[in-house]
Amino acid sequence: MSHTVAEKILQAHTDEEITRAGQIVNCRVSLVLANDITAPLAIKSFKAMGAAQVFDKDKVALVCDHFTPNKDIDSAEQVKVVRDFARKMGITHYYEGGDVGVEHALLPELGLVGPGDIVVGADSHTCTYGGLGAFATGMGSTDIAGAMALGETWFKVPPTIRVAFEGELSPFVGAKDLILRLIGSIGVSGALYRALEFCGPVIDALSIEGRMTMANMAIEAGGKAGLFPADHKTLAYCAVAGRTGDKPLKADAGASYEQDLTLSVTGMPPQVACPHLPDNVRGVDEIKGLAVDQVVIGSCTNGRIEDLREAASVLKGRKARKGVRLIVLPATPKIWRQAMAEGLFDIFMDAGAVVGPPTCGPCLGGHMGILAGGERCIATTNRNFRGRMGSLESEVYLAGPAVAAASAVAGEIINPAKL
Amino acid sequence: MSHTVAEKILQAHTDEEITRAGQIVNCRVSLVLANDITAPLAIKSFKAMGAAQVFDKDKVALVCDHFTPNKDIDSAEQVKVVRDFARKMGITHYYEGGDVGVEHALLPELGLVGPGDIVVGADSHTCTYGGLGAFATGMGSTDIAGAMALGETWFKVPPTIRVAFEGELSPFVGAKDLILRLIGSIGVSGALYRALEFCGPVIDALSIEGRMTMANMAIEAGGKAGLFPADHKTLAYCAVAGRTGDKPLKADAGASYEQDLTLSVTGMPPQVACPHLPDNVRGVDEIKGLAVDQVVIGSCTNGRIEDLREAASVLKGRKARKGVRLIVLPATPKIWRQAMAEGLFDIFMDAGAVVGPPTCGPCLGGHMGILAGGERCIATTNRNFRGRMGSLESEVYLAGPAVAAASAVAGEIINPAKL
Repeated sequence: MSHTVAEKILQAHTDEEITRAGQIVNCRVSLVLANDITAPLAIKSFKAMGAAQVFDKDKVALVCDHFTPNKDIDSAEQVKVVRDFARKMGITHYYEGGDVGVEHALLPELGLVGPGDIVVGADSHTCTYGGLGAFATGMGSTDIAGAMALGETWFKVPPTIRVAFEGELSPFVGAKDLILRLIGSIGVSGALYRALEFCGPVIDALSIEGRMTMANMAIEAGGKAGLFPADHKTLAYCAVAGRTGDKPLKADAGASYEQDLTLSVTGMPPQVACPHLPDNVRGVDEIKGLAVDQVVIGSCTNGRIEDLREAASVLKGRKARKGVRLIVLPATPKIWRQAMAEGLFDIFMDAGAVVGPPTCGPCLGGHMGILAGGERCIATTNRNFRGRMGSLESEVYLAGPAVAAASAVAGEIINPAKL
Repeated sequence: MSHTVAEKILQAHTDEEITRAGQIVNCRVSLVLANDITAPLAIKSFKAMGAAQVFDKDKVALVCDHFTPNKDIDSAEQVKVVRDFARKMGITHYYEGGDVGVEHALLPELGLVGPGDIVVGADSHTCTYGGLGAFATGMGSTDIAGAMALGETWFKVPPTIRVAFEGELSPFVGAKDLILRLIGSIGVSGALYRALEFCGPVIDALSIEGRMTMANMAIEAGGKAGLFPADHKTLAYCAVAGRTGDKPLKADAGASYEQDLTLSVTGMPPQVACPHLPDNVRGVDEIKGLAVDQVVIGSCTNGRIEDLREAASVLKGRKARKGVRLIVLPATPKIWRQAMAEGLFDIFMDAGAVVGPPTCGPCLGGHMGILAGGERCIATTNRNFRGRMGSLESEVYLAGPAVAAASAVAGEIINPAKL
């Protein structure tokens, strides 16, 4: 049978034959992930199910990135639970302190995920690794506990929606705008329990970082996974990360898709998701006179070096408007140092930014930039649910790094082309 | 009448004649300070007393440095109260976001405090400015509200204890060790409502940064203020900070001291304050086999460029021991950039450190490095009260930057000379 990218990966990890979407299959997993919020719950379940040891100490990653450096006693105690478990189990890939980066930026950089892998993580944005051609998906902490113990888990084979992007990207329009455009088009339930498979000339031309930005937000359309074929760029990225033996990966000719979508991007302006859902998307020029109190550039969606460069290109020689808090959070220590070495921190600080350490921080209302009532933020993050970044009376707008940076300068949401 | 440094400053700010310690005098103040924790309380009192306007919008400084970038909704709301007040009053020196540094490092750097000033602040470490020859002291938020409205406040003229340091400093022994030695010697109530006036050849040779480190901890001996004469170094520091018109300042010949102390520092090892009081001080070599979970380098006590250079000199080419969280928090944006430009961040990150933005953060259990139960930290901060940095079951040891850095490498409290 011909398979989509998702089906092909699942097939390679199961002894059963995959013949249709909707089939339940048991698969061996390549990596199991949890973080400082979810790992304590998973560990509790792991113990409750009487498990004595993780299935493979090299295939469990525990990344304490959400509330660290520990924001309070509760988060310190949570991290301690994870640390103690990691030590007891002898887990190789335990990260905290100076090692830590935002999990979904860190694991690809370390070569822990790659094409053809199945990655399950107790974090909804685990789908990021689809940018590398992995079948990667978020699960609840109890399922993750099972996967940590057994090294396998069950999936209902998701139907695949194929999404092609065609046309020419305008200046200041990139990966984030593509995925926001799609989510705005199909809605937050538009890909519910579907695999999104991205293709077309715009996707082929996209960097691996950009593909991860897009895959990252597959869940915001309800997707089980968001997948890109693995091409020469993917293999080059993985080689730099120290992986060997990865192979190209694409759908079989004649694979069966539940739906085929084609979006033309020619003339598309930068996209912005307005409160309080990621599918409330408009072209940036439709938004007028909306002052912002805070701008956040970072997260697993847009905290990579390419994102920081894009923000810096807009901020260079400019200043954030007085009264606007501009917060830049490079996603990993490596990205942090790269940005420093390239002089981006000078640009950010000349612009009046605070440069923080790698952390998920404000994205989920964790720390390092929480909003008070009545405040408005534009962020390169992935969710703008009511209260996501703080007060229930605050607002979050989602955009790419260029729009976020330009909005910091203007003090209101603006198209960087009009700055 | 001959006056001590403290009396001389108070005299210059009052129309009454100061004839004795213990006298109550009303003084004009040079600057009134509050932060994101204390300003909201002061503002509430300010309003309750029916005040309409601050006495001088150039002489009130509001610095949101404790819980920022906002760690949670409560801190975001606190900062909002301060920001709104600053805007309404037209306060010139309001700092948050990218402008913010740890208040007691920031105000000297900006030239807002200098010799002969009276500075009152709603923060106990306001005494830091004594390093520049200012009479500077912490007060409750209600008193600060009065000072913000009136530009004056009352003082009971404190008796002065004169402390001379003599001898030769050993390697890795500096300002922090001097003040810890004194506090260990006289106790946390040893200078209760006294002015400490520092003098002697060791003090004369000390940098301004070092003098501020010492003045900063006067309160840890109960001192109302800790004062240094203003000499050519002080004036040079103030000139760089953009001040004009400052003059040297020293005690009158024949001034009356309640007590004269002389401490010899020859052969003195680095000092460490053990839990749970700053006067529980021992030579570092007396402490053996005490593993640490976290090391914090920063704060209003030791977050200046000189401190970071000292830590870097120990850390260069070395790594923090696995499992030790090393957190470096430069105290102001200027210091942050200076450290970056000097390559110190590369040294810190090679050593496995997290470099955070300027914030008081973990020192007061605020954020950016809070301790879980059973954890031990050595920090360059100023207080080690039970639970100060997190859990009531955690421990904080206080030391200078060299000892803190060496302990990160060794994974236990150690004399850098023995590393």
